[in-house]
Amino acid sequence: MKAVGIIVEYNPFHNGHWYHLQETKKQTGADCVIAVMSGNFLQRGEPALVSKWARTKMALAAGVDIVIELPYAFAVQAAERFANGAVMLLYALHCAEICFGSENGDITAFLDAAKTFLKQKEEHDRYVQEALQKGLSYPQANAEAWKRFGLASLDLAKPNNMLGFAYVKSILQNQLPIVPRTIRRIASNYHDETFSHPSIASATSLRKTLQGSAGRLEMIAPYIPAATKQVLRQYTETYGTLHEWEVYFPFLKYRIMTAEEAELREIAGVEEGIEYRLKQAIATASTFSALIDKVKTKRYTWTRLQRTCTHILTNFTKEQQNQAEAPTYIRLLGMTENGRRYLQHVKKHLLLPLVTKVAKLKNDPIYRQEKKAASAYAAIFSEPLRTQVLKEEYATAPIQL
Amino acid sequence: MKAVGIIVEYNPFHNGHWYHLQETKKQTGADCVIAVMSGNFLQRGEPALVSKWARTKMALAAGVDIVIELPYAFAVQAAERFANGAVMLLYALHCAEICFGSENGDITAFLDAAKTFLKQKEEHDRYVQEALQKGLSYPQANAEAWKRFGLASLDLAKPNNMLGFAYVKSILQNQLPIVPRTIRRIASNYHDETFSHPSIASATSLRKTLQGSAGRLEMIAPYIPAATKQVLRQYTETYGTLHEWEVYFPFLKYRIMTAEEAELREIAGVEEGIEYRLKQAIATASTFSALIDKVKTKRYTWTRLQRTCTHILTNFTKEQQNQAEAPTYIRLLGMTENGRRYLQHVKKHLLLPLVTKVAKLKNDPIYRQEKKAASAYAAIFSEPLRTQVLKEEYATAPIQL
Repeated sequence: MKAVGIIVEYNPFHNGHWYHLQETKKQTGADCVIAVMSGNFLQRGEPALVSKWARTKMALAAGVDIVIELPYAFAVQAAERFANGAVMLLYALHCAEICFGSENGDITAFLDAAKTFLKQKEEHDRYVQEALQKGLSYPQANAEAWKRFGLASLDLAKPNNMLGFAYVKSILQNQLPIVPRTIRRIASNYHDETFSHPSIASATSLRKTLQGSAGRLEMIAPYIPAATKQVLRQYTETYGTLHEWEVYFPFLKYRIMTAEEAELREIAGVEEGIEYRLKQAIATASTFSALIDKVKTKRYTWTRLQRTCTHILTNFTKEQQNQAEAPTYIRLLGMTENGRRYLQHVKKHLLLPLVTKVAKLKNDPIYRQEKKAASAYAAIFSEPLRTQVLKEEYATAPIQL
Repeated sequence: MKAVGIIVEYNPFHNGHWYHLQETKKQTGADCVIAVMSGNFLQRGEPALVSKWARTKMALAAGVDIVIELPYAFAVQAAERFANGAVMLLYALHCAEICFGSENGDITAFLDAAKTFLKQKEEHDRYVQEALQKGLSYPQANAEAWKRFGLASLDLAKPNNMLGFAYVKSILQNQLPIVPRTIRRIASNYHDETFSHPSIASATSLRKTLQGSAGRLEMIAPYIPAATKQVLRQYTETYGTLHEWEVYFPFLKYRIMTAEEAELREIAGVEEGIEYRLKQAIATASTFSALIDKVKTKRYTWTRLQRTCTHILTNFTKEQQNQAEAPTYIRLLGMTENGRRYLQHVKKHLLLPLVTKVAKLKNDPIYRQEKKAASAYAAIFSEPLRTQVLKEEYATAPIQL
């Protein structure tokens, strides 16, 4: 059996994802699609709209065969660490190919860029540092560096190109036996907040429309599969809310206000004296957006700050981040019958332990952070729901379809 | 002008406090009564029912002339540290006498006990340690030790006797020029939860009746002055709630669940491996009472655990506790015209700086903890009220009557 890996967040799963999934199957002819998916918190430093279990249901309903959790220590990270964590998991599962969506759509551009980068890494880094010192943001500086090295054809200021580049780089750098592929994304840019296509819209625009409540589910119905709609409706009926930063703000504010600057300095992502800016701004910020607006600088962008705030909320330290070099386990969130067959097929050759019961992981530092993230994610619920959701983290069996 | 000092929590101010205040004036003939009062959190490790400002109003309305804040670092502490902090503040304000309520009512018993204790300190401590190891709680062990030394006439298992003993001991130990006095408390034991006197009831029973809402204010009306009733009513109208542990539980749970054991171990009061018991119990505890019930042991009593949980909530570390040897400032919460005259009279001779604007204290370690406590206290309010309450901590001028 041949497996293809994809790297996803499904926040929520929409028609664009569906298109990518079908094209992936068609173009690779794989027997099994394995998705590595972020858990409670996402790459850009946001809480996931609904739980990992709910998003696993969406994925399986759409035709993904196996859903694996990308641990927090790799999920809530800039492109390079995010990509390395995901690629190493897909490698451990013996995926023959990895297929990602990109604005570019041409794998040669990615391979060229990655090869050039690996050759010229030092020179590139020096150039980025210089551009940062001139006051450019990191994505701008990176794009500038690429122009300088004659690779402007791959626009790395576009998030999906940047991620794709990171996947390919990780494969080449680690000399993994994985073939990278890319499919051009259609109709919608990554962060588009407007709807211009009859059935495709970005996850960002869908979340904006929902704005933390499923009341407006009908409005996004044209852009999501029926299963997504059903799962979102069911989630809201059971848990009473969708998850977004503003709902977590009371806890973030409590934590920043009662922490000393020196404690904040130990948190992953807290650099360049941002702890003083956070402490200064928090007392008078009454929303999360207001806080970020007050604190952000040219170099400390919105996304970087969101990520840092997520680490503060979940208490993820630099020490923990440094210790987490690569995934140490494969956590199965869900599978289809076909997925089960694939796992049977490879189970003796997996490069990391396959875990369905997380109780076994209680001394694993990477899982300990997952548990803290799950605790923070559940904090917004009233009792007894909160206790129930905390239990779900370790008691939920893999979703089966 | 002659001043008498009293040490109070007024949670809330009731007729028993009123009786103590009038008797103090009558028996000492002082021109001015100075109350040192706990702020947002109290000696037994609980949030104060209403803010320090509201309780200051109750005190001034009843005839206290000056209200001074006992800093968090001394307020949320066992008897000895609590007493030392308060006594040193009253000494810095040149109080000639200190007058406390007690179950015993005879100052000679306290003086004898304190003198004996200071003579036999080592022997006493050794005896207490032995009793603790036999499995007794600290109050029991202490009482046992006293019996052994022939001082059973002063029952130190009674909280107010224990506090009174600590005041007298502090005066003698520091050789302060302060005369201690005591007034026998009438009609109600410290923690009585029943009402047996027509107009006197314990603060504990009053809080139990209110149970976090002012809806039952009429029921406690016979036991409190009209001013207390008015302040409680006004507070609930403005802030929508009274403060009690259960309302803070979501934040405590969030904090314990996202903290590592090693971090909890740095918090004041976390001893004897209680961090493991807390981490173990918190996930399935859906109320504060349930948590304490699960975690408490013979040696780790309810009050001690409450205090520890308060330190976790406000992030008060052992290091901060060790650094706070004695008060470093006199924070004025309120005064009457008479109080103002007294302060004019002594202002050149005060032994610590008198502070009305706390912005000046921003680098004072003891005040930094006060600010963290105030932040935690305000955490339960929704925005924009929360931001307003945070501002009150530093922007409220001393209450004047």
